[in-house]
Amino acid sequence: MDSDQPGMPVFHRRQTVEDTLNGFFRARISASTRYGEGYRALWENIALGTRGGKRFRPYLVMTAFESLGGSDVAAAANLAAAYELLHAALVEHDDVIDRDFIRRGRTNVSGRYRDIAHTAGLQLPTAEHRGLSAGVIAGDLTLAGAHRLLEGAVAGIDPKRAAELREVFDDAIEASAAGELADVDFSVSGVMPTVEEILAMSRMKTAVYSFEAPLRSGALLAGAEPERARALAEVGRHLGIAYQLIDDLLGVFGDRSLTGKSVDGDLREGKRTVLIAHAAGSELWPEILETLGSSEATPAQIDHLRGLVEATGAREFALNLARDAANRGWEALHDPLIPERTRTELTPLIRGVLERTR
Amino acid sequence: MDSDQPGMPVFHRRQTVEDTLNGFFRARISASTRYGEGYRALWENIALGTRGGKRFRPYLVMTAFESLGGSDVAAAANLAAAYELLHAALVEHDDVIDRDFIRRGRTNVSGRYRDIAHTAGLQLPTAEHRGLSAGVIAGDLTLAGAHRLLEGAVAGIDPKRAAELREVFDDAIEASAAGELADVDFSVSGVMPTVEEILAMSRMKTAVYSFEAPLRSGALLAGAEPERARALAEVGRHLGIAYQLIDDLLGVFGDRSLTGKSVDGDLREGKRTVLIAHAAGSELWPEILETLGSSEATPAQIDHLRGLVEATGAREFALNLARDAANRGWEALHDPLIPERTRTELTPLIRGVLERTR
Repeated sequence: MDSDQPGMPVFHRRQTVEDTLNGFFRARISASTRYGEGYRALWENIALGTRGGKRFRPYLVMTAFESLGGSDVAAAANLAAAYELLHAALVEHDDVIDRDFIRRGRTNVSGRYRDIAHTAGLQLPTAEHRGLSAGVIAGDLTLAGAHRLLEGAVAGIDPKRAAELREVFDDAIEASAAGELADVDFSVSGVMPTVEEILAMSRMKTAVYSFEAPLRSGALLAGAEPERARALAEVGRHLGIAYQLIDDLLGVFGDRSLTGKSVDGDLREGKRTVLIAHAAGSELWPEILETLGSSEATPAQIDHLRGLVEATGAREFALNLARDAANRGWEALHDPLIPERTRTELTPLIRGVLERTR
Repeated sequence: MDSDQPGMPVFHRRQTVEDTLNGFFRARISASTRYGEGYRALWENIALGTRGGKRFRPYLVMTAFESLGGSDVAAAANLAAAYELLHAALVEHDDVIDRDFIRRGRTNVSGRYRDIAHTAGLQLPTAEHRGLSAGVIAGDLTLAGAHRLLEGAVAGIDPKRAAELREVFDDAIEASAAGELADVDFSVSGVMPTVEEILAMSRMKTAVYSFEAPLRSGALLAGAEPERARALAEVGRHLGIAYQLIDDLLGVFGDRSLTGKSVDGDLREGKRTVLIAHAAGSELWPEILETLGSSEATPAQIDHLRGLVEATGAREFALNLARDAANRGWEALHDPLIPERTRTELTPLIRGVLERTR
């Protein structure tokens, strides 16, 4: 889930979450001076890296929490901020693994450390190594910070419920680790993964921590029965798959002026998506392989490649999968365990996905 | 603190800590199958990587805990295991940063993932990238596991005390992050750090999480007053510095048959230690620079280099610093806040350090 998505409803507790995140970073930055100016700068960079995010996971936490009658908004904001920081930590380490110095058009933590070192006269490979090293360290601190915020959220609640919330959080970390590992293996392996393998990977890597866990956690913190929280996670599961598919579609067929994301990047990178896994079964595949993954291709060659991928039926295929997943999310939202208010609040989100598949 | 150290007293709760670690890994491995065989293998590799450690941090946690009258041994074993896993996580990411595939003569997590990929036919750079990526993910999981064990340790204790224990644990992570960042900058920078800068870096990178925090945490969990726990941390602080200095000495002048560590590695790598920072101020420095950091140097050249470093007085200088630090640890141990039993139990540890400096 890399690009901005439509159908994001208004999120009226957003400022509370921002305040919680700002307070967290202020405290960390202020405490960081005991370990020197360099360390302080690292925390400032971590804070900078999380600024301007769309706060999608906090939105899901707060929506589940409030629509299920939760009242301790400060605790929920801590939980929401914990998921935002978990996201930031995973993104930082994902960028280290991909050796990316830019995220969404902005220089990331590794990129800033690389640039400072390069400007100071270090050779590029050394500067990049310093950048990636700072990215590893930043991700560790951010992950520890997520745990700190989680403990702030569960302080004082029923210990059994606190343990459930920790379990969901830990499971989100485990799922994303498993997905990241599978993703690495897809990218280094010469074998094209199947559509099912890619769907399973992206569910693990992104959907669990971005959709299922935030919804389930918000519900649990609100005091919902575990089965109700699980029913909400089920909605998240399907929505997460639909989002990822749309993200992959936008990464190849999107309108750059709307998504802000290059529509050549995935093709130049040869990223293993459902689109590509589908295209791999087509007779056009040998011709696709001539340009796919070529960072040197001209815009015209990429346009031709895009046409070839479309001609395999991959676009229709992925759109249908996304539509199916969104419909399954819609059905899951109508589980009798989910109260009317929660259903109403999440409806625009699913509608947004469905509209996007038309 | 890389090499084995003398003066390690008997640690009679060691088996309880081993059982706790084994139980933790059994549960993680068993739960991991839900995310596939590849993910299960990652957890098995993490468990393998922690096997056979000397459990130094658990030893400090348990000694502080028991000598201060702590009684809930299961909770203490969880705390001890949390520090062991924190150590494992930091080592995994330190190896990623240093692009090391071997730790203490054994292939590490990254090395095993690299070797499997290389054997399967991948080119070495791609296989190494896969290895380092698995190392990033493994470190994240291990760090999350350390938090899980910490929560197991503080479950059910006074919330204020639990918060203090989390604070000490988080501070240990922050200190080591700050030290790692400084270490990276020393290694990429062309400027030789001062002796004081190296001492500050290695205190942050290693001594806080390996000595200060385990002793302080064991004391806090036993119910000791915060000032008493802090007095014990002060002992750890000096001991940690002494250990690091001796480790650097052994890394250049040690007896390989005793330490199991190559005594050429630090010189071939050009590692910035107190020895080297001291030598940099000598008139022999230009001659030292001819061989220092050369991985191609012959054994005879390294022997000559070792003689040059010794001739600068660096060995005596570092030995004196280690002796001073151990003496300061000895004085700190005689703070009236530290009870007789704790003093008795930690005395052999300090004696071992002092003996090593003779």
